[in-house]
This record gives sequence, structure tokens and C-alpha cells, in this order.
Amino acid sequence: MNILLTGIDGYVGWPTALRLSKTFPSARIIGVDNFARRRWVEASGCVSAIPIASMPDRLAAAAARGFTNISFIQGDLTDLDFVYQLIRMYRFDVVLHAAAQPSAPYSHIDGARAAFTQHNNVQSTLNLLWAIHESGLDATCHVIETTTMGVYGAPEFEIPEGFVTAEHKGRRDRVPFPGMAGSWYHMTKAHDAAHLYLANKLWKMRVTDLRTAIVYGAETEETCLDPRLATRFDFDFYFGVVLNRFCAMAMTGHPITIYGKGEQRKPQISLEDCVQSTVNAVALAKGAAFDVYNQATEPVAIVDLATAIQRGAVPLGLDVEVVHIPNPRVEKEEHAMTIDTARFRELLPSPKFTVASATEGILTALLPYRDVLTRHRDRFMTPA
Amino acid sequence: MNILLTGIDGYVGWPTALRLSKTFPSARIIGVDNFARRRWVEASGCVSAIPIASMPDRLAAAAARGFTNISFIQGDLTDLDFVYQLIRMYRFDVVLHAAAQPSAPYSHIDGARAAFTQHNNVQSTLNLLWAIHESGLDATCHVIETTTMGVYGAPEFEIPEGFVTAEHKGRRDRVPFPGMAGSWYHMTKAHDAAHLYLANKLWKMRVTDLRTAIVYGAETEETCLDPRLATRFDFDFYFGVVLNRFCAMAMTGHPITIYGKGEQRKPQISLEDCVQSTVNAVALAKGAAFDVYNQATEPVAIVDLATAIQRGAVPLGLDVEVVHIPNPRVEKEEHAMTIDTARFRELLPSPKFTVASATEGILTALLPYRDVLTRHRDRFMTPA
Repeated sequence: MNILLTGIDGYVGWPTALRLSKTFPSARIIGVDNFARRRWVEASGCVSAIPIASMPDRLAAAAARGFTNISFIQGDLTDLDFVYQLIRMYRFDVVLHAAAQPSAPYSHIDGARAAFTQHNNVQSTLNLLWAIHESGLDATCHVIETTTMGVYGAPEFEIPEGFVTAEHKGRRDRVPFPGMAGSWYHMTKAHDAAHLYLANKLWKMRVTDLRTAIVYGAETEETCLDPRLATRFDFDFYFGVVLNRFCAMAMTGHPITIYGKGEQRKPQISLEDCVQSTVNAVALAKGAAFDVYNQATEPVAIVDLATAIQRGAVPLGLDVEVVHIPNPRVEKEEHAMTIDTARFRELLPSPKFTVASATEGILTALLPYRDVLTRHRDRFMTPA
Repeated sequence: MNILLTGIDGYVGWPTALRLSKTFPSARIIGVDNFARRRWVEASGCVSAIPIASMPDRLAAAAARGFTNISFIQGDLTDLDFVYQLIRMYRFDVVLHAAAQPSAPYSHIDGARAAFTQHNNVQSTLNLLWAIHESGLDATCHVIETTTMGVYGAPEFEIPEGFVTAEHKGRRDRVPFPGMAGSWYHMTKAHDAAHLYLANKLWKMRVTDLRTAIVYGAETEETCLDPRLATRFDFDFYFGVVLNRFCAMAMTGHPITIYGKGEQRKPQISLEDCVQSTVNAVALAKGAAFDVYNQATEPVAIVDLATAIQRGAVPLGLDVEVVHIPNPRVEKEEHAMTIDTARFRELLPSPKFTVASATEGILTALLPYRDVLTRHRDRFMTPA
């Protein structure tokens, strides 16, 4: 089995490579990345709190620990020729597409970043789909993409897994959930989801669309085996997810700073559970199905994330303050998001973490890097 | 009033410029184009059946006929800097965005064309929206785009004007219609529609989304005033719309060739009615509304288009044969499309044409160019 993993150098990508390697020891795992995430974070004036090794060092450390079936190719997925060569050479059985510019705030900086995010994300996916199609792999290649729960926006009903019943003048039909994303980044994933749907419809391509929640956490079973196997931990305004940023604030005595009331619930999943469920998707049956999973273990109000961190900080002797400031974003601050995850619970029957059970571990993992966080305290919040 | 008209050199764009000029004589109309359509058709081995003048000749002829308020700037809307300069210089009151690679079959040729279509269409719209936003024109600039009825796909209910009631587990919400487009081109317009929706939501931008039907016809009141004011008439497989292609077949004794049964109904609108309703949209009230109109005057089955042409051909003494061949497209061949156009009928209370009333005029307009059509008979159908 040949597996392509795009975005192997990313926060989720690298731990996924290690888990894939362990789960499918006879598979050949080809990771691709252009190292853009490292550059974006650096250009934002920040760093990963937990130091990450270079790709050659990562692969050497992985091989030394028995993860011997991972190879790496540097390349840009927006380059159609590169993607065609890659797909034709390896004729993948699985394409696990995790590469993207994943930051909503980054995509909102200006038109140039919005345009870049659009091009980078949507073009990459389109190139992969067409390369699979034109290489004659429609019937044999399983495409899995980590899109985002953000494609759903904030509807006034429980968020379904991909499809919804639409009604107009008394007649009904089951239709894909509309792209109601609230940011330019999230819209790119709504477009990807629509493209995956079309590829399945036109070409009978096997597609699994993982609508990934906000992924939090510092490590997985594999990444903590060796410092060189660590994955990145971003905590800046642009690339740090909310729980990780809040943990970084807590570590440095910076008050956990919530935009607005913070009563809106946002779907969450731990890095460990995200990686395991993604790898579980690889083993799903073949066929011409278009499967959507809401890859979330719980919706949690922003204020409750803060409370969980306050509790998790007690054993470490940290005193954590919480403050509220005006919300710069256009969103429903009291949206009582409920999420249908019935299908996802079959994919991941036993999640290992909740936000409440995870915070102490994240804070503990960050403890050795407190100085890095402190040096970059001015990166926690949006630039004035 | 400064009006930007993108795609002014196009089939719909050029007649729209003339109608805008006549309707708003004190407005300044700035047309933009990169002449890509001329190159695409040429690269497809075809030509416009009705010869079209160069842009300088078009503008000179227009000025001679009293259309003196049209200017032209050559440029590519995927170039962010060009778009920013353009918007900042003229601070438009209206941006009427009609530029696009509009061919579904072209977007399906290969991955490179699909990628090009994606980039060309979506990036252009995104650049316009951001340039308006960053130029401080959110509250004053009315954005109008001709998207397409094709974003709706083929649902099992009457197609609403933009929004639909979604239901999940007993709760309901009004949501944007999902992107169910059946081609890579049509998906680009679904993405544009989602972006227009987001621009309205985030920035309170005034947006009118014209979901344009298949536009047929050879001329408008203004284009037939002078041969140099003619608009293009494409009839090749890639760029000719179905009714125009069928008319071209009829003119040359080529049987009207229908893919499959041809019982699926497709929304239609004449060029004259399309142009008039688009210009009517310019005069719509300001505010922060996101308005969607199904810019269609009737849904017509493909076989009924053929019958209308047979009838329209009788006065010209043409004997027109109709044949059916296997359908290469993935579509519902008997889809009884019904379309809600209640809002659109307010925008255009009195359409001038139906398919049935238009065909004789189109055939008559093509009569002088029968030799051009005959020389390019091999372009009517998809290349083997």
C-alpha cells in the first residue's frame, strides 16, 4: 500500500506520519511538504514553543525508533506538474491530504494573504484530484482530506455530518451542507469539500471528508518518544489554536484573554484523537462512497476552555487569570453549537481526551519552554 | 457614478456596456478585459460566427453612435496589484463583474484547464472584493456579479432564489443554497457566490448575485446598430451555448445533435433580456443587502430547443433534422427543473423573448455568416 501524506511537516501531519507508520508497517508512506508553515510562523515573528527538528533529523530519529517506512519529497502542491509526477510515480492507494494554510486570521490580514490562502489551498486539492483522475486511479485511490468544521458556520440547528434536508415549497431533498464559513480560510475548505463531492459524483472517486474540529494538544504517543520526534506547538495569534494559545498565556502569567463573552461553543478534538481517527479513516472500506465525518469529540465554550486550563494549572502551582476584551470578529458570541457526531463515533469509538482531561498534560509539556513563550508574549494577541 | 464592467469584451459584456451607456448617460463606464475569450476560442480552432471588431474599433463605433461614456483598460483581474490600482483610482460606485472563463466543457478538458478556470474565476472575484474593502468602499460600492444557475445542480425541488430552508432533527434555518454544481466551471461560480455572501456578512457590502441562465441570441438593440458594434457568437463545442450551437448546426444542414434523451430542462434567457435585467440591477437601491436573482426567463427541455429551431427555420426555407447520440455528461437526463423566479420577475417584469419567439431572429442574423459556420462544422461537437 502506497500512502501519500501531504503536509507531513505540519502540526497534525507529522504525528499522523508516525501513527500511519506504526499502524501500517508494510505500507510505503510518502510525505510531501514545502515547509511553508515554518516560514509563515517565522514571518509572523514567532516560533514553535516546542522546538522541532529538521525533516532529515525527524526522519533519522523516526527510523531509529522503528518508523522505517516514511520517505519525504519536498514540493509545492500548487505546482500541477509536480503533483502529476508524484501521483504517476507512486500510483497511491491512499492520498491523505492534510496540507493547507490553516489560519483564518492569517487569511484576513489583507487581500494578498486571502488570495494566497485561496490559491494555495484550493488549487492544491484540485491538482491532487485531477492528477488521480488522469492517472487512471479513480477506482483504486482513496482520497482523505482534513477539511474543517468551520465550513458549517453557525446554523440554528444541530450540525449534521455533511448533508442536510433542504425544503422548498413543500418538496424536500438531501443536499450537501452549504458553505457558510465565516472566514476566507474556512471558505477554502468549503470549496474543497464541494470539489471532493464533485470528484465523487463525476468520477466515482472514493472520498472521505474529515471535517476536523479545532485540534489542541502538545504531543501524541509517538512524538514524545524522542525530542526530535516532537511536533510543532504554535501559540501566536495567527497560527496558535485557541486552547494552545490559552495554555501559553497561562504558562507565562499573561491573563487568558477572551474576545467578547466567549460563550460560543467551538468543536474541539485532541491531537491524539485527531491523529488516531484520521489513521482509522485510512482503513475504511473502498467503494465509491463520499463519506463525511464531523471529526470532533466535544463542543466547548471558549470560557470553559479557560476554566479547564485554570483547573489544569493548579497542580503546577500556576495562578491563572481570565479577562474579556471586545471581540474583533463577526460571529454569534452565544451560539450554542451542537454537533452530530454519530458517524464519527463509529470511526473513533473511544476518544482518549477531553479538554478537561488534557490541559494539565499540555501545560506540563510546555513547562520546559516557558522562556520561549515569555519571549514571545507580544505574539499572543492580534497586533494593534 | 463610476461603473466598472469586467469582461467588457465578452459575449454578454459588450452589449451590457452599450446598454449601460444608454441607460446611464452621465455615468463613467470603465470596461476591463484581457481578451482571453478571443484567445481561448482561437486555441479551440474556432471563431465567432459574427465578426467582431477590435476594442478600439468598437469604442470608436460606439462613440460615433452616441455611446461616448465608455473607456477601456486592458488588464488581468487575477493580478492583485492591477485590481487594487484600478479600484483605488476610480473608487467605483458599481462593480459589475461579468469576466470569467465560462465554459464547463473547457474546464473539463484536463487538470490544467480545470486549475486555470478555478484560479482565473475565483481569484478575480476575491481580488475585486478585497480591493473594494481595502479601498474603504464597503458602504458605497454595489457589487453585481453574473454567476450562474448552474451552481444549483439538479435538486428534487423547485430551485429557490439563493436560499433554502434546511432542516435537521426537527430544527430549521434559512441557509444559502449549497454548491451542487455539476462541473468544475460551475463550481467556481458556487465559490464566488459563497465569497459574495461572506463579503456581505463580514463587511456589510452591498451585493447582487445574478444567477444567470444559459444566455442565447445574436444581438441586442444596440449591437445591431453598426456591424462594428456586434457581439461575438460562439458555436463551437466549448464556448457555444446549446441554443446558439443548435442554430449554427441548423444553418449548415448539420443535424441538431442532442446528447442523450435531451428531456432535461435547462434555464434560458435571451441576450437582450439578460443585458436589460443586468442593467436594471445597477439601479437597485443601496443598503447592506445580499440579493440573489435567478436570472432566467424559462426552463426549456433540450429537445424543445431543437423543435423551436425547426419551427424558426421554416420561414428561411431550412430543413432541420434532429438526432440523438449517447450523453458523455453525468447528469439527470429527465430532470424536470422548475425554477423560482419571483424576485427576478420584479427585476425584469416584461421579458422581450422566449426561445420560441427568438429562434427565427437568430437564424436570420446568422444567414450572412453561413460560410463561416460551414467551414467550422467540425467544431460543433466534442473532439473524438
